[in-house]
Amino acid sequence: MGDRKKSVTKTIGILTSGGDCPGLNAAIRGVCRAAYDRYNMSIIGIANGYRGLIDGDARLLRPEDFSGILTRGGTILGTSREKPFKSRNGEYDADVGQDKVEVIKENYKKLNLDCLVVLGGNGTNTTGYLLSQEGLNVIGLPKTIDNDIVGTDMTFGFHSAVSIATEAIDRLHSTAHSHNRVMVIELMGHKAGWLSLYAGVAGGGDIILIPEIPYDIDAIGRHLLKRARDGKSFSIVVVAEGAQSVEEAKMDKKERKKYREKTAKPSIGYRVAREIEAETGMETRVTVLGYLQRGGIPSAWDRVLATTFGTAAAELLARGEYGKMVSLKGNEVGSVDLSEPAGRVKTVPEDHYMIDTARSVGTCLGNE
Amino acid sequence: MGDRKKSVTKTIGILTSGGDCPGLNAAIRGVCRAAYDRYNMSIIGIANGYRGLIDGDARLLRPEDFSGILTRGGTILGTSREKPFKSRNGEYDADVGQDKVEVIKENYKKLNLDCLVVLGGNGTNTTGYLLSQEGLNVIGLPKTIDNDIVGTDMTFGFHSAVSIATEAIDRLHSTAHSHNRVMVIELMGHKAGWLSLYAGVAGGGDIILIPEIPYDIDAIGRHLLKRARDGKSFSIVVVAEGAQSVEEAKMDKKERKKYREKTAKPSIGYRVAREIEAETGMETRVTVLGYLQRGGIPSAWDRVLATTFGTAAAELLARGEYGKMVSLKGNEVGSVDLSEPAGRVKTVPEDHYMIDTARSVGTCLGNE
Amino acid sequence: MGDRKKSVTKTIGILTSGGDCPGLNAAIRGVCRAAYDRYNMSIIGIANGYRGLIDGDARLLRPEDFSGILTRGGTILGTSREKPFKSRNGEYDADVGQDKVEVIKENYKKLNLDCLVVLGGNGTNTTGYLLSQEGLNVIGLPKTIDNDIVGTDMTFGFHSAVSIATEAIDRLHSTAHSHNRVMVIELMGHKAGWLSLYAGVAGGGDIILIPEIPYDIDAIGRHLLKRARDGKSFSIVVVAEGAQSVEEAKMDKKERKKYREKTAKPSIGYRVAREIEAETGMETRVTVLGYLQRGGIPSAWDRVLATTFGTAAAELLARGEYGKMVSLKGNEVGSVDLSEPAGRVKTVPEDHYMIDTARSVGTCLGNE
Amino acid sequence: MGDRKKSVTKTIGILTSGGDCPGLNAAIRGVCRAAYDRYNMSIIGIANGYRGLIDGDARLLRPEDFSGILTRGGTILGTSREKPFKSRNGEYDADVGQDKVEVIKENYKKLNLDCLVVLGGNGTNTTGYLLSQEGLNVIGLPKTIDNDIVGTDMTFGFHSAVSIATEAIDRLHSTAHSHNRVMVIELMGHKAGWLSLYAGVAGGGDIILIPEIPYDIDAIGRHLLKRARDGKSFSIVVVAEGAQSVEEAKMDKKERKKYREKTAKPSIGYRVAREIEAETGMETRVTVLGYLQRGGIPSAWDRVLATTFGTAAAELLARGEYGKMVSLKGNEVGSVDLSEPAGRVKTVPEDHYMIDTARSVGTCLGNE
Repeated sequence: MGDRKKSVTKTIGILTSGGDCPGLNAAIRGVCRAAYDRYNMSIIGIANGYRGLIDGDARLLRPEDFSGILTRGGTILGTSREKPFKSRNGEYDADVGQDKVEVIKENYKKLNLDCLVVLGGNGTNTTGYLLSQEGLNVIGLPKTIDNDIVGTDMTFGFHSAVSIATEAIDRLHSTAHSHNRVMVIELMGHKAGWLSLYAGVAGGGDIILIPEIPYDIDAIGRHLLKRARDGKSFSIVVVAEGAQSVEEAKMDKKERKKYREKTAKPSIGYRVAREIEAETGMETRVTVLGYLQRGGIPSAWDRVLATTFGTAAAELLARGEYGKMVSLKGNEVGSVDLSEPAGRVKTVPEDHYMIDTARSVGTCLGNE
Repeated sequence: MGDRKKSVTKTIGILTSGGDCPGLNAAIRGVCRAAYDRYNMSIIGIANGYRGLIDGDARLLRPEDFSGILTRGGTILGTSREKPFKSRNGEYDADVGQDKVEVIKENYKKLNLDCLVVLGGNGTNTTGYLLSQEGLNVIGLPKTIDNDIVGTDMTFGFHSAVSIATEAIDRLHSTAHSHNRVMVIELMGHKAGWLSLYAGVAGGGDIILIPEIPYDIDAIGRHLLKRARDGKSFSIVVVAEGAQSVEEAKMDKKERKKYREKTAKPSIGYRVAREIEAETGMETRVTVLGYLQRGGIPSAWDRVLATTFGTAAAELLARGEYGKMVSLKGNEVGSVDLSEPAGRVKTVPEDHYMIDTARSVGTCLGNE
Repeated sequence: MGDRKKSVTKTIGILTSGGDCPGLNAAIRGVCRAAYDRYNMSIIGIANGYRGLIDGDARLLRPEDFSGILTRGGTILGTSREKPFKSRNGEYDADVGQDKVEVIKENYKKLNLDCLVVLGGNGTNTTGYLLSQEGLNVIGLPKTIDNDIVGTDMTFGFHSAVSIATEAIDRLHSTAHSHNRVMVIELMGHKAGWLSLYAGVAGGGDIILIPEIPYDIDAIGRHLLKRARDGKSFSIVVVAEGAQSVEEAKMDKKERKKYREKTAKPSIGYRVAREIEAETGMETRVTVLGYLQRGGIPSAWDRVLATTFGTAAAELLARGEYGKMVSLKGNEVGSVDLSEPAGRVKTVPEDHYMIDTARSVGTCLGNE
Repeated sequence: MGDRKKSVTKTIGILTSGGDCPGLNAAIRGVCRAAYDRYNMSIIGIANGYRGLIDGDARLLRPEDFSGILTRGGTILGTSREKPFKSRNGEYDADVGQDKVEVIKENYKKLNLDCLVVLGGNGTNTTGYLLSQEGLNVIGLPKTIDNDIVGTDMTFGFHSAVSIATEAIDRLHSTAHSHNRVMVIELMGHKAGWLSLYAGVAGGGDIILIPEIPYDIDAIGRHLLKRARDGKSFSIVVVAEGAQSVEEAKMDKKERKKYREKTAKPSIGYRVAREIEAETGMETRVTVLGYLQRGGIPSAWDRVLATTFGTAAAELLARGEYGKMVSLKGNEVGSVDLSEPAGRVKTVPEDHYMIDTARSVGTCLGNE
């Protein structure tokens, strides 16, 4: 840090948007350290996601702002769920909400930004893409506990959430063990099963229900009853928040929404528990892990990944490669065009090795 | 361990009863190591609490059975909620359920027990007391995450639960922080506020609602709105499962049950959240920690306490001091008569220093 | 916080001194919240312990300074090992170092302090006592991972260190288990055995060596060889940094220093390991836990205790009860005269229940 | 599990060899569950690595043997460092130690094994390769906290060790922070820098010294002094156990051994600390993490990886693809020929992205 004799090369804006997730500050630090120290850029921190870009809520970041934040949960920049392009029917549409977009474009100019760095999930990167279509220079970083962003193998936040969820399943094991019960644990993950699949395997879940494999309550009942016959005193059922039954999967969007409102009170885990009790007569208890999955100190791996993504973003900035999202593919840290993740969701493919891993150790995935 | 040249001095039975809790195995190990190695007693492990004593489900424990279990969650003996004296109206009554009690007395004789060691909470120790009134030799150990047993300052299991709950509150802090929300977290504790009070203070809860201090939603609303005016971007509300409103506290048992069934769906935390939203208009989210509080590896302190209680029980056994529950008072490990905890619940006294600690750091306890 | 209509009642200075330890920030927050909000005091934060009081390095603390620090490790005020009264021969002496003391007295006046609150261990509270003898108003808080302060049952920092050390012993268990080894782990604790005794019992240490019970290598060898004969594949030996052999305990201070310099390279744990290998021929490995015991997030219990001590200090301030150290005795939070801890060290008494607990579960304390 | 109507298809032997590491039991469970349940194989557990294969110490594993072990540290099979092919000069050589190898071949026949599954690091898989050259069917699994096995991106055990080491660095941060010191932490990793590089980046180490980049004490001194000038109150130096100076890297093997014996007492971390103190005059303290890195509960990710590797090994067994080691490359779980890892060590390549990540956030790697 120290003295800055060299002249500033570029001015960048940085914001975090969408749900909270561990590793945001580590990524901010990665971007800023590399951009500031290595490339002598000037960095503008934008408050509360796209909301701050609309409100013009921004300030120059100094080294002391991004020092000592590697392990801190949350985001020093604040976040919001503001989606400037989102129309009222909930679809992304470049033709609506132009007022906000125009304001963003004006503020981008006023702040003299050479590029805007956005850290967030699918919504955030989709907005980033749409802004780049509007002529702004944008670089995205994939952040989410759901791991559901197209274009990267891994998002930061995911590993921390897997760790937390696994630890929760571990705790349930001992208490389930003493009481001859079915324990349902509902995890987050949005419309993808990544979190439940990984934490379910890591925690030794007996049944794992993910959105990608609609469940058949008969199959679940059979598996639980077989376990009871085999002398197992308890079972752990991991349920992704997006889990759906075979029947549900056939419904159209409207029907399905109605069906869920009716059956999944207060949340899907409770519905599965009720279905299990009806099917098997076994005492079934529910734990909804909820916000605990989003908070706290990032895991070592998430700090590594977030730092790496942050510094990779700085490289893109230095080279002027805009319109990209940084990504990890296999062992390569690189980038993809922002159009790749935009408007899409990465779900677990049927032939993913984790599906086979789970089945190989005897885990029921709800359909057989 | 090794060779046992000395003749066996006594035969004891040991059981764990009631809800699961961290430290049970540590306490079993403490009793057994001291009774077996130091006093050359023979130890009969009884399965699944009082149920095993009714069913005659028991076996001789060998050193390898109680070796290596110090850190393990759950209980190697199994547990159940069997309460042999409990009448159908839910009151303890020495005159009912005599069939089970007679069976227990017979099995006690058949097993040639000199004493029965029972590890459990209020119900377990109350049953122990009633059995001692029936002529059996009984020693109790106070185990519960609720810390609500009369006659001891501390129960084992409590510290582990406080640690887990505090860690959960820590996680909520970062996520609440980024989103400008009220986060309600519901903790266990049965009819006592110990767990919520300790975890709430340790976690820096802004509002803590415990059964001993009925809450006034107006006071809660005022506190939350004042925090918002003072620029605090979020608030954490810790709610004990036994928390009650001022109105509720005035109801008789029947009215109250009805009122709770109607208002506290699916649990009290949700009711408080709804009341907060109605009162303040602030976005409020709920986390119910549930079974996570009962499971997992016992904390260092619980292992120390459980081991100490276990070895203290062995001393009572050696001296033939029956009809006692081991206890911690201040810095003294000793015992109280089993009549002391029987049928009672230790709630947080109004003048307990933790009440003052909480208020001194600005925490609202719901009533002012 | 908010508006401060009431006039300021008192002006206090606060400093942290001596070794780092978890809970310092929690205690600072406790003092400040209660002093500022409840009693409307003005609070001066003094940097780097007594050094800052000598250098006049001090500033007014605002609510935002002591907000959000409950869980943070370290101390926001900084610390140093400055002991203004300490003469060159290492003894406390009110007649030496008067220059520094006079400067402190001047600065105390310049800052218009009504009282000085000092957070630290034996040295810090001893200095506090000596300053109170010089006419200053002083209140002390007992902080140390060593738990060796006379006048209180418990110091904050101790529980966190016990947790960390216990977790380390847990880790050694699995690796010792697979390799048929003796694992020595050296813990801190200064001249007292509290930390090793508690962590040793919590971690299931097979041998625990504390300064209060000089060890006999023959007894240790016998215990290890008996374990091997009994088929135990490994042993864990917990060694307090102050542990000493029977021979050493008989030496005078000078002899002993020389002997340690010669034999305990690089630290006592290594010496014990070498002695064990010589005595038993068993492969023995050493882990020195070191600074890990001082750092990191305070445990739930330490946050509770530190917060309670902080608010209790504010009560003393409000009542003008100076010359005291806050303390916990049994279940009572109160205070003792600063003369009580001054110049003394609280070691583990021979008849402490933990000694008996350890022996009852078969742990060798090195002397039999 | 339950009834086994189908006839047994194959008989396999399984052993764990070399240093202990988290995830061994998870991998054993993965192999056994899939081999037993899915493919109806008979499984022989061999005790204490290759030693048990020499001694004929083996027994049939039943489902209850590999149930409930997912989270347990250590290995249920025991381990040893027996290397049957190792000649006295420490080189692998198929022409020496044939007695042991012949005994192994005989026992392999006596046990009627169709294949031997070996879980271990470089030595273990090299031995596995040599045994396969002798005509045995062997499948290897890559296990080590060092991540230094050629042919796979990742080994299980590595992530757990990174987590533990990162947590230790976190603790040092707060204590370093309060005291104006250089804190050296020495990590494991054998001759590779993976563990130090990942934990160093995750923990925000200011200097990271790995074997692949010989260090120049002048460069280290300059970096530390610059940090001090920039007002940083402390620095964290992460030192891999295999770290070497520029001078040392030029020595031949014999010279180097002598030099290390002379300078690196009791271990390399202490040497680096002494060199830093000599170079900068800054107070420097050392922590050697040691065996803590090998023990305890495997991380969620290691459980996932170990389970996946275990089930992948079962697939190879079922297909009769012998002479392979299972591996992860990018996102693909597959296998490589055992000749690939045999006798080699995977060090950190100069162009690995983590090298760049570390430098981008301002970390000094000791050479500039």
